[in-house]
Amino acid sequence: MAIAYPHFFVSEKSKNLKQQPSLMVSSTPSSPPVILSQDELKKIAAYKAVEFVESGMVVGLGTGSTAKHAVARIGELLKLGKLKNIVGIPTSTITHEQAVSLGIPLSDLNTHSILDLAIDGADEVDREMNLVKGRGGSLLREKMVEAACKKFIVIVDESKLVSHLGGSGLAMPVEIVPFCWEFTLKRLEMLFIEAGCVGKLRRTVGGEPYVTDNGNYIIDLYFKSDMGDLKAASDAILRLAGVVEHGMFLDMATTVIVAGKLGVSVTNK
Amino acid sequence: MAIAYPHFFVSEKSKNLKQQPSLMVSSTPSSPPVILSQDELKKIAAYKAVEFVESGMVVGLGTGSTAKHAVARIGELLKLGKLKNIVGIPTSTITHEQAVSLGIPLSDLNTHSILDLAIDGADEVDREMNLVKGRGGSLLREKMVEAACKKFIVIVDESKLVSHLGGSGLAMPVEIVPFCWEFTLKRLEMLFIEAGCVGKLRRTVGGEPYVTDNGNYIIDLYFKSDMGDLKAASDAILRLAGVVEHGMFLDMATTVIVAGKLGVSVTNK
Repeated sequence: MAIAYPHFFVSEKSKNLKQQPSLMVSSTPSSPPVILSQDELKKIAAYKAVEFVESGMVVGLGTGSTAKHAVARIGELLKLGKLKNIVGIPTSTITHEQAVSLGIPLSDLNTHSILDLAIDGADEVDREMNLVKGRGGSLLREKMVEAACKKFIVIVDESKLVSHLGGSGLAMPVEIVPFCWEFTLKRLEMLFIEAGCVGKLRRTVGGEPYVTDNGNYIIDLYFKSDMGDLKAASDAILRLAGVVEHGMFLDMATTVIVAGKLGVSVTNK
Repeated sequence: MAIAYPHFFVSEKSKNLKQQPSLMVSSTPSSPPVILSQDELKKIAAYKAVEFVESGMVVGLGTGSTAKHAVARIGELLKLGKLKNIVGIPTSTITHEQAVSLGIPLSDLNTHSILDLAIDGADEVDREMNLVKGRGGSLLREKMVEAACKKFIVIVDESKLVSHLGGSGLAMPVEIVPFCWEFTLKRLEMLFIEAGCVGKLRRTVGGEPYVTDNGNYIIDLYFKSDMGDLKAASDAILRLAGVVEHGMFLDMATTVIVAGKLGVSVTNK
C-alpha cells in the first residue's frame, strides 16, 4: 500500500504542529521537485491515511474533495481483497452514495456507536491540530461521526495550514435553524465584534439559501483577527439559541497528514 | 386591569424564590377559600402578567396552556382600546395563529431584535428562577425570543414549583436533529448517568416521532436525582453534536408570577 509517488519521503512525527516550518520534508537531492496539482496532493494525503485502515474496522468516511480519494481507495482495496470486513459510516448523503457505488458495506451511528477510525479532510488546521470544517456543508454529521471515533485522521494539502483558526480569511461555518436567521446572524457577529467578524448566509448558485442535509442554513463567519480562546468561542456560539453546530473541531484530530509540494508529513497527537 | 378574582390578595416580592413556602398568601379570614381549577389559576397568573404590558411595547408571546390566556388578554385589551401600538413576537406557529385571530399586530426577531417584555409559561420553576420549558414542544423559538427580552415574566400555577430542575419527575426536553437520534439519545443518557437519566423519543399519539416547528425531534430526559451544576449540564448538552437546544432556561426569567389556591405572588429577580 505504498503511495504511488516515488519521489516523496514520508516524515513521521509524534509531536504537535507547532513546528510547522519543518513539516514539509524535501525531495531527495538527486531528483528534481515534481510539480503536483492540489488535487494530486489531496490524493497523496488520502492514500497515506488509508494505510491506517485494517481489516475488520468500523471506519468513518469523510466528505469533500480530499476525503473522496480516501473513500475511493478503501473501495479499491476491498475489491482487491487487501481489506476485508470493513464497515463504513458515511458523514453525508454524498459520501453515502459514493460508498454504495464502490460496494463498501455501510452502517450508522445507531448500530455502531464507537468507531475505530475516521478519515476526513479539513478547511483549516492550526498548530494545535484544531480544525475548521464544513465549507462543504456537512459539518454536523461529520462532527457526530468523528466525535465517536477512537482515532481521527485529518488529511489536507499544505494550503490548509493556518497560524490560527479563521486565519485563512475564508469562512468558519455555523449551522443554524432557518427560523429568523437574520437575527441569529446578527447575534453571531456581535459575539465576535472585537475580531471584526462578518457573517454571510450561504447561498446556492441560484441565490437560494443553501440547505444542509439536516434542513438547516449555514452562516459563514469571516474574521479580521484572531477570535481568541477557542473553547470559550465554541461555548459562546453553542449557547446561542438558533445555533445547531459550528465548524470548529477542537481537540478531536489524533493524526494530521499534510501533503505538500515537497513531501508528506504525518503528525500524531 | 384588576384581576377578576376579588377574593385574592396579590403578594409582591423582590427577592428570589428561596422562600417558596411563604409564596402563597392566604385569602382574607372573613371569606372562605375559593376552589379554583388549575386552568383558572393559570388565567390568574396570566392576567397579572399582562398588567406589566404598556402601550407601544414589543412583546414576546409565549406558547402553551398558561401563555394562551396572556395572549387572549392582550387581544382583549387591544380591542377595548386599553392597550395601543403593541407589536407581538410569537414563539410558535400555534401562538402566531392565535394572535392573528385576535388581531394582535405581529412581527419577528429579524425586525425587532430587542423586545421590551415576554410572557410565557414554564413546566418547572426552581428556587433560583431557573426554568424547564418545552414540554409543549416550542422550546427553541421560545428561547430565541425570550433571550432577546429586557424583561421576561414567567407565569405558572403552583404545581410547577420544584426544589431542583428535573425534580417533578417529568421530562426535561432536548431538541435534536433527526439524524441518528438513537445515538444522540444514548450520549445524552451517558452525560447524566450518575443522575439516573433515562431518555425517550417524544412521539405523537399515532406513534410517529414528534416533529418540532424546526423539523427536529425531541428527546425527553427523566432524572432520578439532581443533575448538579446546571450551567455545566447546559454546556455539556449543547456540546453534543446533534443537539440543537435544551429546555433549561437558566438565569433568564426576571419575574415569576405564581398562582396558587390561596393567592398569587409576584417575585422579581
